Amino acid sequence: MAKKAIAEKALLLHKKLGGKIRIMPAIEVKDRTALSLVYTPGVAAVSSLLAENKKQARDYTIKGKMIAVISDGSAVLGLGNIGPYGALPVMEGKCALFKIFAGVDAFPIVLDTQEPEEIIETIVRIAPAFGGINLEDIAAPKCFYIEEELKSRLDIPVMHDDQHGTAIAVLAALINAAKSVRKDLKKLKIVISGAGAAGTAVAKLLLKSGVKDIIVLDSSGIISGDRKEKHKKKLARNTNPRKISGGLRAALCGADAFVGVSGPGLLRTNDVRTMAPRAIVFAMANPVPEIMPEEAVEGGAAVIGTGRSDYPNQINNSLVFPGVFRGALKNRIAKITDEMKLRAARNLAALVKNPTSRKIVPGPFEKGVAEAVSRAIR
Amino acid sequence: MAKKAIAEKALLLHKKLGGKIRIMPAIEVKDRTALSLVYTPGVAAVSSLLAENKKQARDYTIKGKMIAVISDGSAVLGLGNIGPYGALPVMEGKCALFKIFAGVDAFPIVLDTQEPEEIIETIVRIAPAFGGINLEDIAAPKCFYIEEELKSRLDIPVMHDDQHGTAIAVLAALINAAKSVRKDLKKLKIVISGAGAAGTAVAKLLLKSGVKDIIVLDSSGIISGDRKEKHKKKLARNTNPRKISGGLRAALCGADAFVGVSGPGLLRTNDVRTMAPRAIVFAMANPVPEIMPEEAVEGGAAVIGTGRSDYPNQINNSLVFPGVFRGALKNRIAKITDEMKLRAARNLAALVKNPTSRKIVPGPFEKGVAEAVSRAIR
Repeated sequence: MAKKAIAEKALLLHKKLGGKIRIMPAIEVKDRTALSLVYTPGVAAVSSLLAENKKQARDYTIKGKMIAVISDGSAVLGLGNIGPYGALPVMEGKCALFKIFAGVDAFPIVLDTQEPEEIIETIVRIAPAFGGINLEDIAAPKCFYIEEELKSRLDIPVMHDDQHGTAIAVLAALINAAKSVRKDLKKLKIVISGAGAAGTAVAKLLLKSGVKDIIVLDSSGIISGDRKEKHKKKLARNTNPRKISGGLRAALCGADAFVGVSGPGLLRTNDVRTMAPRAIVFAMANPVPEIMPEEAVEGGAAVIGTGRSDYPNQINNSLVFPGVFRGALKNRIAKITDEMKLRAARNLAALVKNPTSRKIVPGPFEKGVAEAVSRAIR
Repeated sequence: MAKKAIAEKALLLHKKLGGKIRIMPAIEVKDRTALSLVYTPGVAAVSSLLAENKKQARDYTIKGKMIAVISDGSAVLGLGNIGPYGALPVMEGKCALFKIFAGVDAFPIVLDTQEPEEIIETIVRIAPAFGGINLEDIAAPKCFYIEEELKSRLDIPVMHDDQHGTAIAVLAALINAAKSVRKDLKKLKIVISGAGAAGTAVAKLLLKSGVKDIIVLDSSGIISGDRKEKHKKKLARNTNPRKISGGLRAALCGADAFVGVSGPGLLRTNDVRTMAPRAIVFAMANPVPEIMPEEAVEGGAAVIGTGRSDYPNQINNSLVFPGVFRGALKNRIAKITDEMKLRAARNLAALVKNPTSRKIVPGPFEKGVAEAVSRAIR
């Protein structure tokens, strides 16, 4: 479908549905006896129990199975700061996918504040009904602080999906892309365009997985030690080992892989031509990628991935987040560690038995995706 | 079922269910085309639209149909301040009933704070995804302030159900109870035991409906002008026209109706004997009423109601809240007014064609209950 046709169809569908999720009772209540168990007076016994022992809330309430998908709308898709109402359809979509892909119940919360302290406070205050917090579409750099604070203040898993969901999906895709072009993952020269939530987390997880040569760029060029933001200073310490300076062209020269988590149209066919042979191009900006797959092919790229559902090799967090939280809920994990993330990426990659340039990640509808990821979260 | 048997069955059922509601996608998503409409890239068109025009969120998202059921756990059932985990099973139960009785989607939020300002802030910040706020089991007197503030700060309807749901149900029941004992509603002498959220709202709505002789009591006795709390001072100005002083016994002497929204076992058979002939006794404390129906009968009461599902004449908010919010959502009401509440009570009462002592309110499973109430909210 053409872009305009998709937009029009999506608008019509959303208006017809009026919201992409529904609440359903977990049990039929057809008579007074059932009512007296589900509601008053029977429910009082459960309330009394949980008042004394809140840990049992996971057994007796939705806390054992419900994820909150929370955004302040400050960095929605590639659309930027469009606020809570703009964010809501995306969060609803994620909640629908949680159920469809992993059988996990999730509810969208969009916040009418963009202040980090207020976001943290609000989430801490509404946390009791939830078994996990999926942060979503919150701008960098505040997203790093918000996630860290919440992790330390809550006893349920907190994951900023734009960071870690993306990082896990990219690592899985790179593992298989490297195989398909017969290169060693750890020896790849990788250029990451974008030093926001996704770019920073991708760089961190690739480093953890043993990759040595990573260059990260933001809109001012290659990240070096003179940057002021804390997360960029830290990135500068661990990346760009060849001390290259300049912009995207300088970084790309001879690179094995480009990972775009930045904005539309930043990469041109000619740029791809300067990369190493059998180049890997992940152009994941949403909804419009850094380079359209057709142009990347023209530039000689051997493996191409995007974040979109309408091209092959969709490197999308939807492969990851449902399984991560399914595993976290099942195993009652309090924190999602780097070890778990690495394992999740490897499990996801291993689902593709013989990776080729057109098949480096499983499709979102393939069986076993959520299960493979969830097995890593233990 | 005996009390203990109900408690045990309820515990088993809750553990088996692990939460009384589930999230379901509103649409099947089985292939990439569907995914590209529900999620990225298609959803971007909806997000862009709502970023520009947030009013359309009611048409394109769950905001048009989703109610938040929110409690801080400070006054749960008759159990008192048992906190958010104790409150959660009750809120989940309400959400299930919203769907079962009125087809309304509702989600439970329990708050890890009991500070009025923090409660208000938190609710304002999470309001964008919701089309209405049902406050629940929040202690008096802070519940009055919290509700008023939220009403003035939000453009969606906010209703503290313990106040107004109860008041509407009691007024409906009294309209029919008066008919069944052939007394004029407006001339009834009514004693309200409890000056918390429910008692205060019941008194206010009865006054609005034209009742003149109301005495309200709290644990210190009949409410008079020397009370310090603002809402009790106000009650004192509008109630107790015969200037009676003392406790429950003094108030009850010659009264036509007792409305208990207080605590278990406050009323004894002998107390009922001092009331006027053909006395009406509503003993609505939950889960244990002010007097068990069997004892009230022994004392000579002509009409008896409780809040429980296991006795006749269940005067419970579950007759009211589903319909109120169904009407509010359907007609996109911003505020629920006293006029609407009076109309809702009359509509509810009118569903019982020939009120008798054993039938003053419709059963919760009778057809047309939510519809009758919802028609009043316009």
